[in-house]
Amino acid sequence: MLPDIAFFDAIAEAAAAETLPRFRMQPDIDNKQEAGFDPVTEADRAAEKAIRRLIAERYPEHGILGEEHGDTGLDRDYVWVIDPIDGTRAFISGLPVWGTLVGLYHKGRAVMGMMDQPFTGERFIAGPGSAAVRRGGRTTPLATRKHVALDQAIMMTTSPLIFADELAPRYRQVERSVRLARYGCDCYAYAMVASGHIDLVIEADLKPYDVGGLIPLVEQAGGVMTTWSGDRPEYGGTIIAAGSRALHEAALEVLNRAG
Amino acid sequence: MLPDIAFFDAIAEAAAAETLPRFRMQPDIDNKQEAGFDPVTEADRAAEKAIRRLIAERYPEHGILGEEHGDTGLDRDYVWVIDPIDGTRAFISGLPVWGTLVGLYHKGRAVMGMMDQPFTGERFIAGPGSAAVRRGGRTTPLATRKHVALDQAIMMTTSPLIFADELAPRYRQVERSVRLARYGCDCYAYAMVASGHIDLVIEADLKPYDVGGLIPLVEQAGGVMTTWSGDRPEYGGTIIAAGSRALHEAALEVLNRAG
Repeated sequence: MLPDIAFFDAIAEAAAAETLPRFRMQPDIDNKQEAGFDPVTEADRAAEKAIRRLIAERYPEHGILGEEHGDTGLDRDYVWVIDPIDGTRAFISGLPVWGTLVGLYHKGRAVMGMMDQPFTGERFIAGPGSAAVRRGGRTTPLATRKHVALDQAIMMTTSPLIFADELAPRYRQVERSVRLARYGCDCYAYAMVASGHIDLVIEADLKPYDVGGLIPLVEQAGGVMTTWSGDRPEYGGTIIAAGSRALHEAALEVLNRAG
Repeated sequence: MLPDIAFFDAIAEAAAAETLPRFRMQPDIDNKQEAGFDPVTEADRAAEKAIRRLIAERYPEHGILGEEHGDTGLDRDYVWVIDPIDGTRAFISGLPVWGTLVGLYHKGRAVMGMMDQPFTGERFIAGPGSAAVRRGGRTTPLATRKHVALDQAIMMTTSPLIFADELAPRYRQVERSVRLARYGCDCYAYAMVASGHIDLVIEADLKPYDVGGLIPLVEQAGGVMTTWSGDRPEYGGTIIAAGSRALHEAALEVLNRAG
């Protein structure tokens, strides 16, 4: 049996208790990798610990895949996929477009997901047959925009620099085909696809925890989310999320067109 | 005599009454220019009208320079500089990083300024000797970070694509010199410099109304804001905002270094 929404609320609140007090407090930042810049804040670690504690208490038989504290029981039927702070760079820059991502996979398929943004007070949750965002006591169903052609689409990506050499020209073909391309929003961009405010997100080099919480939001809102090859997105990699099947097909065609 | 903070509050509230109900409502979008993409929403126009009405009532002797409804009395001692929605693209994409900008110039110098973000509930206001952000009844003084070297700095710009051909390589020299460069935040980036969360903003092709409300925030918080030539920023153009004089000098040196 799937958890109820209240369990996701408990997770979101436990995570927010660790993240929000440290947001805009200029927390200590470690570097995961010597080359490049991959900050991990105390907030990230503490929030994942709090989320794992709740899951282990309530669902000791489930597996967990997390960004900060490793994997447990990935061969089990149910696996939780956790990114306590997606958009760490937004977080350290004071921008309210990071989020706490929690997805639940059943036999490798994302069936429930949440993106919580505690500074703006927005909580996006989706499960079988339901998808909504709550804020300040108001609940709004999630629904993608369905009738936007590629040349009218608003697209986002974290940065045009995230694409490896062989992917960059393919990405740019799509960027040139849309009405507006915007950078820099991490998980928030997928929530805006699910909310019908933008139409496309195209990214690459994603991990399962970058997408696990987001897939049900996009899918239950009427969108389509796959890899650039059209495969299921649960394990990350190259990712495209679109508001409609038609737009997904049109964008994939441009992505995969010979340059 | 300068207006008090309460007058800026009245302006912010009148503008928010026009912008917020239309945020995420997918308003009609016109195109100002046939080439390119420069949306102007109903919210933009209605908010500017509301702001102008308040100013004309209280300060009929002042001039007004606005994005949407033209200029009045630009030769007067006091001139209000208004951008009802800075970050129109963020606005139409559902992202809470746009803002209402209002600056007051005295003999060509920005002496008071405001950036209001009504969705997140943040109101940044600065005048002579004061600079603070208010949110939910809590007031926090604005103060830039003072001891960040260029190679440790976090920088933002709206997009790496805003720079004309002769400017782009100069911008990229700085981008390569900082710890982290992030795209896509318009006025919100300057508010984050003033708040001490990021260190640098570098942009180009800005209009007076893009910067008028922001200059006092950055300056009164301890930062430095000029053109790329080191001149006063009131009339826009190429703009650099830095958290400290030392960082401003270091960044300008790289910006103006032969490639």
